Amino acid sequence: MLHAPLTGVIPPIVVPLTDSRELDIASFERLINRMIEAGVHGLFFLGSSGEVVFSPDHLRKQILHEGIRIVNGRVPVLAGVIDTETPRVIEQAKRIKDMGVDALVATAPFYALGGPAETQRHFELIREAVDMPLFAYDIPVCVHQKLDYRMLVQLGKDGVLDGVKDSSADDVSFRMMVLENQRQGRPLSLLTGHEVVVDGAYLSGADGSVPGLANVDPHGYVRMWDAFQRGDWQSVRTEQDRLALLMRITMVVRSTVGFGAGIGAFKTALQQLGVFTTNQMPLPVAQLQGEEITWIRQVLVQAGLIDE
Amino acid sequence: MLHAPLTGVIPPIVVPLTDSRELDIASFERLINRMIEAGVHGLFFLGSSGEVVFSPDHLRKQILHEGIRIVNGRVPVLAGVIDTETPRVIEQAKRIKDMGVDALVATAPFYALGGPAETQRHFELIREAVDMPLFAYDIPVCVHQKLDYRMLVQLGKDGVLDGVKDSSADDVSFRMMVLENQRQGRPLSLLTGHEVVVDGAYLSGADGSVPGLANVDPHGYVRMWDAFQRGDWQSVRTEQDRLALLMRITMVVRSTVGFGAGIGAFKTALQQLGVFTTNQMPLPVAQLQGEEITWIRQVLVQAGLIDE
Amino acid sequence: MLHAPLTGVIPPIVVPLTDSRELDIASFERLINRMIEAGVHGLFFLGSSGEVVFSPDHLRKQILHEGIRIVNGRVPVLAGVIDTETPRVIEQAKRIKDMGVDALVATAPFYALGGPAETQRHFELIREAVDMPLFAYDIPVCVHQKLDYRMLVQLGKDGVLDGVKDSSADDVSFRMMVLENQRQGRPLSLLTGHEVVVDGAYLSGADGSVPGLANVDPHGYVRMWDAFQRGDWQSVRTEQDRLALLMRITMVVRSTVGFGAGIGAFKTALQQLGVFTTNQMPLPVAQLQGEEITWIRQVLVQAGLIDE
Amino acid sequence: MLHAPLTGVIPPIVVPLTDSRELDIASFERLINRMIEAGVHGLFFLGSSGEVVFSPDHLRKQILHEGIRIVNGRVPVLAGVIDTETPRVIEQAKRIKDMGVDALVATAPFYALGGPAETQRHFELIREAVDMPLFAYDIPVCVHQKLDYRMLVQLGKDGVLDGVKDSSADDVSFRMMVLENQRQGRPLSLLTGHEVVVDGAYLSGADGSVPGLANVDPHGYVRMWDAFQRGDWQSVRTEQDRLALLMRITMVVRSTVGFGAGIGAFKTALQQLGVFTTNQMPLPVAQLQGEEITWIRQVLVQAGLIDE
Repeated sequence: MLHAPLTGVIPPIVVPLTDSRELDIASFERLINRMIEAGVHGLFFLGSSGEVVFSPDHLRKQILHEGIRIVNGRVPVLAGVIDTETPRVIEQAKRIKDMGVDALVATAPFYALGGPAETQRHFELIREAVDMPLFAYDIPVCVHQKLDYRMLVQLGKDGVLDGVKDSSADDVSFRMMVLENQRQGRPLSLLTGHEVVVDGAYLSGADGSVPGLANVDPHGYVRMWDAFQRGDWQSVRTEQDRLALLMRITMVVRSTVGFGAGIGAFKTALQQLGVFTTNQMPLPVAQLQGEEITWIRQVLVQAGLIDE
Repeated sequence: MLHAPLTGVIPPIVVPLTDSRELDIASFERLINRMIEAGVHGLFFLGSSGEVVFSPDHLRKQILHEGIRIVNGRVPVLAGVIDTETPRVIEQAKRIKDMGVDALVATAPFYALGGPAETQRHFELIREAVDMPLFAYDIPVCVHQKLDYRMLVQLGKDGVLDGVKDSSADDVSFRMMVLENQRQGRPLSLLTGHEVVVDGAYLSGADGSVPGLANVDPHGYVRMWDAFQRGDWQSVRTEQDRLALLMRITMVVRSTVGFGAGIGAFKTALQQLGVFTTNQMPLPVAQLQGEEITWIRQVLVQAGLIDE
Repeated sequence: MLHAPLTGVIPPIVVPLTDSRELDIASFERLINRMIEAGVHGLFFLGSSGEVVFSPDHLRKQILHEGIRIVNGRVPVLAGVIDTETPRVIEQAKRIKDMGVDALVATAPFYALGGPAETQRHFELIREAVDMPLFAYDIPVCVHQKLDYRMLVQLGKDGVLDGVKDSSADDVSFRMMVLENQRQGRPLSLLTGHEVVVDGAYLSGADGSVPGLANVDPHGYVRMWDAFQRGDWQSVRTEQDRLALLMRITMVVRSTVGFGAGIGAFKTALQQLGVFTTNQMPLPVAQLQGEEITWIRQVLVQAGLIDE
Repeated sequence: MLHAPLTGVIPPIVVPLTDSRELDIASFERLINRMIEAGVHGLFFLGSSGEVVFSPDHLRKQILHEGIRIVNGRVPVLAGVIDTETPRVIEQAKRIKDMGVDALVATAPFYALGGPAETQRHFELIREAVDMPLFAYDIPVCVHQKLDYRMLVQLGKDGVLDGVKDSSADDVSFRMMVLENQRQGRPLSLLTGHEVVVDGAYLSGADGSVPGLANVDPHGYVRMWDAFQRGDWQSVRTEQDRLALLMRITMVVRSTVGFGAGIGAFKTALQQLGVFTTNQMPLPVAQLQGEEITWIRQVLVQAGLIDE
C-alpha cells in the first residue's frame, strides 16, 4: 500500500503477446526489468495502454499476477479496474485487491448515460467496497466524460481518492486542479498521462507522470524527472523535445488509427529494440507490418535508440 | 434459433430489483407474462435498458436464466453480449450460447479508439467464434460510434449479421439502410429502437421495433403493429401519438438525467401499475422518489393506464 | 406577409453560379419557374443550401432581389437572416425586411459560446427589432446547438416565432415538438428539412417540408404532399422511397464531403437536367467533375429523370 | 507590417461598451494605454474576446479605427477577419487592409461542413486576395474544427501563413507543431491563447501569448515574459500560478456560461479596477450583477489588484 503521495515516473505497462495472442512472459520480464532498472518510480498495469478492455478476466488476472511477480516489490504497483458501471468495477476490484497491488485506478462510469451525481457516487462506492488507495482516471476520449477537478479534489479531502491520472489533454483544467489541490492541503497525487508535454505538467505542479512512451524509452523520462527535481528546466525541456520527436513513431502509421496506431507503434518499437518478440495486437486490431515498420525504425534511429 | 427474418414488437426487458438490489423474480414473471400475453413477438434481454452494463456476470447469467425459464419458448429470445472489445464480447457470447437464446446482440467495440476496419472485423470475429444468429446494435449515444449502413448490409450479405437494432436516432440513415437492404435481397431484419417514432420507421420499411416503453404499455405497441400489418396508417399514428405522450413519464424527471431518468421512470411506472414491487435502481443510480413519482402517476392517468 | 400557418412544400433554393461565380440569372429563372409550375407552396431563399454563409452581403441582396422578382408573388417567400450573433442577425434582417419577403428565418446564435437564456433572448430580440413573421431554423450540424422544443413552442405562444424549420435529424424531438405544439393550440408551423424522411415527418404531424432535393425533383415532393393530403399513405411512402434513392446523387461523391458533396451533387444534377448552365461552387469549394458527374448521371437515369 | 517573427505578449482586446451598447471610447483609451504602458508587445483587435461576432460591420470598423488611433504605432496591431466562409472573410479583409493593421487573423471556415481541402484552400485564397501577413486562428470550441499542425506549418513554408494563434487547448498538438515548425526552418510565429498555461507553452517553445486575462493584469503577463526571456523558470511558474488564480474571476459566475461568464468577468473586473465605466455586454448577453460582482471583487482582492 502507498504510505505517501505517489510521485515520479509511473509508466502504464504495454502487454507483449505471442503470435497466438497469449501473454508473452519472457518479453514481459524484459520490459518490466528494463523499466525498473532505468529508475521508474512505479508501474501501472491494466490501463488503457495495457489492453485492459481487450482482455478477458482470466487474462487480466494473468497479466497482473505475472506483473506483480516480476516487479517483486521493487516499485509500487497500480492496477486498473476498468469496467462499465459501478457494480462491475467493484467486482473487478474485489478480484484483485488481495493480489499485492498498492492502489486501484478507476475511470468514470461509461456506456450508460449519467450526470455528475452518479460519477461522484461511483467513486465513493468503489472506495467503500474496497478500502485501499484509489486513483481516478480522467480519460474523456475513452469514457466521453471529463471529470470535474473540483469534484476530484473534494473527493480527495473526503478520503475517497488518493490521486488522479489525468489523460484528458486539458492542460487548463489540470493547472486549475493543481491549484485547487494546493488550496485544500494537497490531498491528491496528480499525475499527467500525456507523454509529449510532461514538462509543462511538471511546471504546472504535477506530482508525476504516467507516460506510455516510457515503455519505449524509460531512461529519457527518468532523466527528465531528475532534471525537474534539481530545477534544471533547460534539461527538462530538451529531454521532452527529444521524447516528443520519438512519439512520431505513432504518427507514421497510415493503416489504422487510435489504439492500433499508438500501441501498435509502441509494440513495433519494442520489437525493434529487442524487448518484445512480436508486435502482435489483441483482436480485432491488426498488427503493423511492411513499410510502417520501416518508418518506425527510422524514427528510432533518429532518436538514437537503435543504430541504422 | 431464428428460422426466418425476425419481425414485430420485441421489447428490451427492464429488470426489477428488490430493495437490496437483487433480481426480483416475482416481478420479473409479472412483467414478462404481461408482455407475452399482450402479444409481443419476441423479447430482448440484457440490452441497455436491461442493465447489462450495471450487472456483474453472475447477475447477467441469472437475469437470462430466469428470463428464458419464464418465457418458456413462447416467443424468440434475443440476448445482449455487451462488453468493451472483441475478446470480451466473445467471452460473454460463449457463456450464454447454450442457454437457449435465439440470437445474440452486440454493439460496436467501445472504450478503445478504432476505425471502421476494426468494427467490421469485430462483428466477423464474433460470428466466427459463436455461430448463431447475430444482430448489430447501433447505439452511438453509448458507444460513440455510428455504424455505417452500407457495412451492415454487406455483413448481412456475407452471413455475419442477421439483423440490426437501430437506436441511433438517425432516421435518415435508417431509411437509406432499408433501401440498401432491399437492393441486396433483404439479408437483414431491421428493427428500430425509438419508441416515439416507431410509426415513421414502419413507414420507412422497418421489420419491427424494440421499444423500451413497451415494458409499460405492451398492448399499445402490439395494436400499432397490427394496424401497420393491415395498412391502417391512421390508427398507427394515433396509437403512436398516445404512446409518445406516455413517454413524458421520462421527461418529468428533474433529479437526474440519462439512464436514471429513463429507466427510472419506466420502473416507477411499472411499480404504479402493480407490475414491479419496487422502483429500485442499480448502483450508482438513485431511485426516483417524492414529487417525481406524483408527476409520473399523472402522466399514467392522462394516458388512461391507471385511474386517478 | 403570411396570414395563416404555412403548409406544404417550401424548397430551399440552390443558387446557380456562372463560371466566374456570379449569380446566373437565366438559370435562376429556370429553377424557380420549374418549382412553382410543379406546384410548390413557398420558396426559402438564403438558407444553408442557398449559399448564405458563402455570399457577401451584396450577393445575398442580389439573390433575394432577383428571387423575389422572379417569384412575383406566386408563392410566399422566406428568407434566411443567417449570421453569428444577435446584433449581426438584426442588421441582416433590417436590410431585407422591406424587399418583399413574407417571413424571416434565423438560426440559434453561433461561434460564441452561450446557454439557453441567450438563445431565447436572441429570438425575442430579433422579433422586437423586425416585427414580421419569424421562423427558427434548427440546424445543430452547422450551429452546434440543438434548439429545445419546449422553448420553441413557448416562443410560439409568446408571439415571437411563427414556425420552425427542423433540420436537426432528430425525429424523436420533432415528434415531441409536434405534440407539444398541439397541446398549446398550434402556435407554430412545423416544417421538416430532411428530404429522405418527409413521409415520417408528415405521419408525425408536420405542417410541411423544406427539402433541398426538391430543387432537383419538385414534382415528386408535390405528389407526396398531395397523397398525404388525401390520406393515401401507400403513395406517400412509395414516392418517398423513390426520392430517397434519388438522394444517392450526393452519396456517390468521393472527392469531398459536406456542402461540397451535397450541394455539389444538386448543382451537377440540375446541370444534367438542363436547368443550370454550370455546376460551379462558391469558394473555397471545388466543383464536381469527371467520374462523379457520370455517377450522378446514372442515379438520375435510374430515377427516371433523364434518358440514358 | 511585421518585419520579423512576432514575439511576446499580444493581448486580445476586450471592448468597453456604454450602457446603450456603443463603443466607450474613454474606457477604450484607458484600457489600451494601460496595456502598452505595461509593456505588451502587440495588440489583437476583433478577436473572439473582442466581440467580433457580435459587432455589426460599422462597429467592427469603429473599434479598429479607434484602436489604431489610440495605439498610434507604439506596438504592432493584429486584426481579426472573422466570418463564416472564404468570400465573406475576404470581404472583411479588404475592408480593413488599408486601415493600418500589421497582420490579419482568420479562423477556419465555419457553419458549412467541409473537409481539410476546403480549409487549406480557404487560407490560400485569403492570402491571394489580400497580400499581407496572415495568422491562422485555431479555435475549435467556436468553429468546431481543429486545424492540423502539419497543414499549418506547410502553409507557413508556402508563404500563406505567418503565424498561428492557438486557442485549441490541445497542448499535445501545440508541442508537435512547435517541433514541426523548427524542423521546417521556423516559418511560423506560434502564439498560445490560453492564459492559465502560458508557462507550459513557453517551455514548449511558443513565440508568444495572446492572453485575454492580460486585459485585467497586463503587468503580470509582461513580467512572466521577461522571466522567460532570462531563463528564470521559477519566476515564470510563480507568476503563472498567480494569474491562474486570478482567472477564477470567470469561475465564480453562476448566472451564465461561455462568453457571458468569461468576458463578462473581465469587463466586471476592469470596471472594479476603474478602467471601464460599465460592464455592459453585447446582445443577447446579460451583464453580470449582484453577488457575482462581489465574488469577482474578492478574487481581485486576493490577487492583490485592489484593496479590500
